[in-house]
Amino acid sequence: MFDPVEKLKEFVRHPSVSTDPAYKDGMRGAQEFVSGLLRSLGFAVEVVKTDLHPIILAQRDGPTEWPHVIIYGHYDVQPPDPLGLWKTPPFEPMEREGRLWGRGTADNKGPLMTHIAAVGRLLEKHPRLPLRITFLIEGEEETGSPSFLPFLRKYKERLNGDFVYLSDTGIPREDQMVVTCGLRGLTLFEVEVTGAKMDLHSGLHGGVLRNPIQALTELCATLHTPDGRVNIPGFYDDVRDVAPWEREELRKLGTSEADYREFLGIPAFHIPPGYTPFEALRFLPTLEFNGIGGGYQGEGSKTVIPSKAFVKISCRLVPDQTPQKIRPLLYAAIRERMPADVSFRIIDQHDGIPYLVVPPGRSNTPADQPPRLAKAFRVIDAAAGEVFGRPPLYLREGGSVPIIADIKRVLGLDSLMLGLFLPEDNLHAPNESFNLRVMQKGSAVSEKMLSALAGV
Amino acid sequence: MFDPVEKLKEFVRHPSVSTDPAYKDGMRGAQEFVSGLLRSLGFAVEVVKTDLHPIILAQRDGPTEWPHVIIYGHYDVQPPDPLGLWKTPPFEPMEREGRLWGRGTADNKGPLMTHIAAVGRLLEKHPRLPLRITFLIEGEEETGSPSFLPFLRKYKERLNGDFVYLSDTGIPREDQMVVTCGLRGLTLFEVEVTGAKMDLHSGLHGGVLRNPIQALTELCATLHTPDGRVNIPGFYDDVRDVAPWEREELRKLGTSEADYREFLGIPAFHIPPGYTPFEALRFLPTLEFNGIGGGYQGEGSKTVIPSKAFVKISCRLVPDQTPQKIRPLLYAAIRERMPADVSFRIIDQHDGIPYLVVPPGRSNTPADQPPRLAKAFRVIDAAAGEVFGRPPLYLREGGSVPIIADIKRVLGLDSLMLGLFLPEDNLHAPNESFNLRVMQKGSAVSEKMLSALAGV
Repeated sequence: MFDPVEKLKEFVRHPSVSTDPAYKDGMRGAQEFVSGLLRSLGFAVEVVKTDLHPIILAQRDGPTEWPHVIIYGHYDVQPPDPLGLWKTPPFEPMEREGRLWGRGTADNKGPLMTHIAAVGRLLEKHPRLPLRITFLIEGEEETGSPSFLPFLRKYKERLNGDFVYLSDTGIPREDQMVVTCGLRGLTLFEVEVTGAKMDLHSGLHGGVLRNPIQALTELCATLHTPDGRVNIPGFYDDVRDVAPWEREELRKLGTSEADYREFLGIPAFHIPPGYTPFEALRFLPTLEFNGIGGGYQGEGSKTVIPSKAFVKISCRLVPDQTPQKIRPLLYAAIRERMPADVSFRIIDQHDGIPYLVVPPGRSNTPADQPPRLAKAFRVIDAAAGEVFGRPPLYLREGGSVPIIADIKRVLGLDSLMLGLFLPEDNLHAPNESFNLRVMQKGSAVSEKMLSALAGV
Repeated sequence: MFDPVEKLKEFVRHPSVSTDPAYKDGMRGAQEFVSGLLRSLGFAVEVVKTDLHPIILAQRDGPTEWPHVIIYGHYDVQPPDPLGLWKTPPFEPMEREGRLWGRGTADNKGPLMTHIAAVGRLLEKHPRLPLRITFLIEGEEETGSPSFLPFLRKYKERLNGDFVYLSDTGIPREDQMVVTCGLRGLTLFEVEVTGAKMDLHSGLHGGVLRNPIQALTELCATLHTPDGRVNIPGFYDDVRDVAPWEREELRKLGTSEADYREFLGIPAFHIPPGYTPFEALRFLPTLEFNGIGGGYQGEGSKTVIPSKAFVKISCRLVPDQTPQKIRPLLYAAIRERMPADVSFRIIDQHDGIPYLVVPPGRSNTPADQPPRLAKAFRVIDAAAGEVFGRPPLYLREGGSVPIIADIKRVLGLDSLMLGLFLPEDNLHAPNESFNLRVMQKGSAVSEKMLSALAGV
């Protein structure tokens, strides 16, 4: 059996940034690395070409009466900038303090390796394991998975699993397992405002035209209410009520608001009334500014009125909001609020539908929940309880894995999401890392779950 | 006599960007070039060291009864970025369509060369010209002239001129000379807002804290009223009434609002009520955003909540506003309006006092105007009228030359400012250029003025 941590280091060394064409070689390297690893475990690996980055479809087939689990992961990572803030280079993995540091260690190479290692050990013990396993590993998760939906539609027949299993969500502490039951959706776009057709001297022309930075900041300032809600008419219309057991379950989280505030390093939270911070980031939608730029940004000053300024915006959505309904509301508000003395354009970026799966036996469990899904939940519950010494928590998460809703929509399958990363793992930020004890425990849970499912 | 255009090309080839230490060699090259040129005309050149970039003090001395004119210029230029928008490289001067293209051709190397050429021709014709001339050429104009005031105080005795003569202001068309009678002052600063102590994943943490871009844009949006005034209590308290002759003179400008709007390429002006665009940019103060930045600015998207965001702000001031009074008003408003759930700091940048000199014979000409200043005005009027075929216009300008107010304050001297650059010269912007016919005519005016002053 291979050493999962050493294999993970190898995986992280490939700089697989999917959003930036400069990392083309890193994308190919990461794809070939993981394809090779699965082949070495006996999987039939197909590398499915797409318009952007290929999808790895690795299957262990068997009689149709065998259960069939589909394990999802992604081999692409976020861009590493701002590079200057990394303590060690992002693509030179470094083991330190029981953690592995590097871009993609937690999102998603570490969690994916956790399950590959579990499968590896199980197949070593039981070469004839009566379980069908499909690894479905994409390379476009950080760019919004544009090829995933067409792929699902095309490969629907071969993806006739019982459920999807994955780890691309979090846990609050290393001793508390979480089964993630909900994910926020999202919708991303950019607004670019143009004033004069060229940059202008702010003395010679200042005072006669609306500066595009002024127009942009005035627009941005209309997008929230003072109490922290999103100020777009109709934005909250489809937000589904939260079941009381969900709030109850969340209270078991055990993180204090003071600790969370200190972790973030902020003077105060800024939350709509009636929600704790832990509720707000799971149960409420958001509108966030991910980037803004325009004019002179160098050292010192330059007395210029820039021609253009832009802002990058993302909204997180909750059930039953959809990007299809929210996006037009956003655009209509922006068009209405933008002053007529500047020009502007809105640039679409990607979308994701929110997702919710309710475990068996809750007040809002659907009456028609498939028995095999309910069984899978119970198997996971027991396995997680055994390894961590206490039952998992069933929580929604603030992040988005848009393909989970797509899988539900196209394949009709729900997803069992085993949380594996910690708040301090710094996903999408400098100094990302992955806790190697969690990796080991998570891998043990996966092995037990797969083993029980196979009945061995 | 040297060829002024060829000498100007040589001057422009030295990339003398004073705000950026990377251009150190270019600064030294430009300083040595102009020092050498003045030495070759017989001037005693002293290169006065300062904390940043040296000041060139070049003097042609003589008996105290000779008139003494001080000619001001600066050898530093604005940064050339955004480089991608230049049609030809900024520091490779290119003669085309009767213009010389390159960074600094109009601001200020071309106008300075215009006067050096006039002095050169005059001294060639009259080697014993009864006129004292001092060239005072600094290298910090584009960084706010931090060394200039201490220099004036130290060299006050040697700067006992009758008036200061310079060209760092504009004209509306190449056939209409302008004597600039007023300049806006300015005050510059930066605001940096910090939210969480590190960049955050906008899914995992979005919805619990105020994004620093949100805080910043909400602040920026409070700084103007909907009708385009600056929304800072007390900001307009010291704005002096405009004399009716000034509005009258401005109406002779002959530029139509439609032409100006088309030149800027904007759908509409944005001006406080009661002012034309031409009045607004001369008679009213402003608050402009010169740059804004924060979060992800690359291609595509990155779902991050940035830790920091910043904005660079400049205010143009008009008589009798002072930075000393305006800066605290601005800072107090910002401190009061910034939400308590983010932290922030305000970074001081440079300042300049506004300036106004009234020509002889106007309703608001000071009763105690020195007779030699009045004479200089009339000499300029006649010389400009002769070369351009019509009298100059006496106008304020929207730009700032902060050292003009410092000269008045420390040396007690007023300045005669001969406009030389055109709106299409693109100062502080890509594709800066200087009209060579204006250069030639301006040089003839200077020669006539200096000649008349010397009585030859």
